Amino acid sequence: MYPMAQSLLATAVSLAGGLGFLTAGKDMSSLASSLSHSAKLLNHPGASSSPLPVGVGFIVWGADLSAAVEVTRNFVPAAVWLFSPRQAADLVTWTEKMREASGGKTRVWIQIGSVAAAVEAARLCNPDVIVVQGADAGGHGLARGAGIISLVPEVADALAREGHGHIPLLAAGGISDGRGVAAALTLGASGTVLGTRFLAAKEAEMKPGHVEEVLRASDGGVTTVRTTLFDVLRGTNKWPAEYDGRGIANRSFEDAERGMDTEENKRLYEEALAKGDGGWGKEGRMITYVGTGIGLVREVEGAGKIVEGLRKDAIAILEQTMARF
Amino acid sequence: MYPMAQSLLATAVSLAGGLGFLTAGKDMSSLASSLSHSAKLLNHPGASSSPLPVGVGFIVWGADLSAAVEVTRNFVPAAVWLFSPRQAADLVTWTEKMREASGGKTRVWIQIGSVAAAVEAARLCNPDVIVVQGADAGGHGLARGAGIISLVPEVADALAREGHGHIPLLAAGGISDGRGVAAALTLGASGTVLGTRFLAAKEAEMKPGHVEEVLRASDGGVTTVRTTLFDVLRGTNKWPAEYDGRGIANRSFEDAERGMDTEENKRLYEEALAKGDGGWGKEGRMITYVGTGIGLVREVEGAGKIVEGLRKDAIAILEQTMARF
Repeated sequence: MYPMAQSLLATAVSLAGGLGFLTAGKDMSSLASSLSHSAKLLNHPGASSSPLPVGVGFIVWGADLSAAVEVTRNFVPAAVWLFSPRQAADLVTWTEKMREASGGKTRVWIQIGSVAAAVEAARLCNPDVIVVQGADAGGHGLARGAGIISLVPEVADALAREGHGHIPLLAAGGISDGRGVAAALTLGASGTVLGTRFLAAKEAEMKPGHVEEVLRASDGGVTTVRTTLFDVLRGTNKWPAEYDGRGIANRSFEDAERGMDTEENKRLYEEALAKGDGGWGKEGRMITYVGTGIGLVREVEGAGKIVEGLRKDAIAILEQTMARF
Repeated sequence: MYPMAQSLLATAVSLAGGLGFLTAGKDMSSLASSLSHSAKLLNHPGASSSPLPVGVGFIVWGADLSAAVEVTRNFVPAAVWLFSPRQAADLVTWTEKMREASGGKTRVWIQIGSVAAAVEAARLCNPDVIVVQGADAGGHGLARGAGIISLVPEVADALAREGHGHIPLLAAGGISDGRGVAAALTLGASGTVLGTRFLAAKEAEMKPGHVEEVLRASDGGVTTVRTTLFDVLRGTNKWPAEYDGRGIANRSFEDAERGMDTEENKRLYEEALAKGDGGWGKEGRMITYVGTGIGLVREVEGAGKIVEGLRKDAIAILEQTMARF
């Protein structure tokens, strides 16, 4: 959700009873001001009391650890969400430093995309939460992976077998509404995380062309694709080799499939960037990272209303499903 | 499940309250004898009374329609499951012929992998059931698709919008146990279909090496892969262009990834075939079509016990999940 998920959106989610996240991404320059703004919006008395009820997401392979430590010490976010280390040992360092910086007040969430990575993260870091990211998720994730339908139960079983059954799992990837939330809970998750759905939150403050693209896309498994092309076009191709990203299969992707030379494709992408809103749409080349759940995103709503709807709908759906038996 | 899913397995599923399927595949020579054997096992009085409580799966692009008509007329299976037409018009022909051959007694199931295909099948054929196949499914399916976590709800919404909300959906892909069944129901499916789980059914009568491979594989999203390579190796590469298949990422796949020439890879595959059981295993080249739910398949059980467990566990999980609120 970088760079849209900032203080307005994150705090609206937290105020509705969820936990909103700010994304540090690799660039931490604006994070301190976003956290400061969040504290103001939440009327939070300061880090010396309870943690600030928002989280921060870090891309471990790219983020600066000492800057992350400083921001965690100064703001004590409720959680940090660690994703995509170059090696598992980096997760250990990050976990220790984050716990140290916050005096143990900040919860450490680790996002994984395979059973092996979940077991390794549990063994090495004993994180407070494991986010189980399925292949339907938008943005970066493992190029080869399962959807949460099999990944969540297999991770749950493996963790229980290895003595890590106490770590709560949150499911990510393909969940856009109460049906997906209810499904994730039955699969063994304690909760869910949603990114794509909040691209159509009022508070996301995205460009109109981007919002239109999000609302336009349907048939999410066909209109989105996992690829490394978007990283190539954007010049963000230092991701570890096992990652790619899911986004809308735009004109750039189609051209690449038909064999267009990368330099030419990149040139056309940069032309589209210059067009702003005109760069989206059916023939667009702007990059729109979204999950397969995009087809279920059909209107812009307030983030609080989305959170409340997810909760209410999930419970209603579980009741209706039980009533069939 | 071709060629394992034959009468013993299919009837065991039906006797436990499910509906077992025989797979005609493209070759229909053994189908009549499998149906005849099924009728005997089920102690079924014959086609003139009620339909035979097993189904038959047809690969529409490859199966012989007149042979399918004959077998449907003679045995009146409870359902025919139509998959992968070269063009949607073929589904219309098949649906009409199957209904005609059975005097309307055989239910027509159509399997799709996208929202667009679901709406088209509903509009053209008004099938009795739509099987919604997600990207986690083993064997052939759309190369580009969503998992059922988003595909089932999006298909349900689209069908309801277009006036086809009466058609029951069955979810396929990545479901191996009661958790997956419960999840599919909350997503909007009326039921589920499982293939991979039944590879480890006692009645499947597979080769010991094949069974060992099924039980060995874990971390289903990582150890399986969607590819057209297996079709290339087997010489079954006449599938419509939008299809590939999910199977265990074996040595042949790894070699292909590293750039091995196709002819050489094929030669090594044929050598492995000659080895029989020795062709499976970590360094094996035998082809094992399975879904990402393979990591949840950990023991061989009777098919009836599997069916009963799925039902019992799904209900228990729904109850437990509701109890959290």
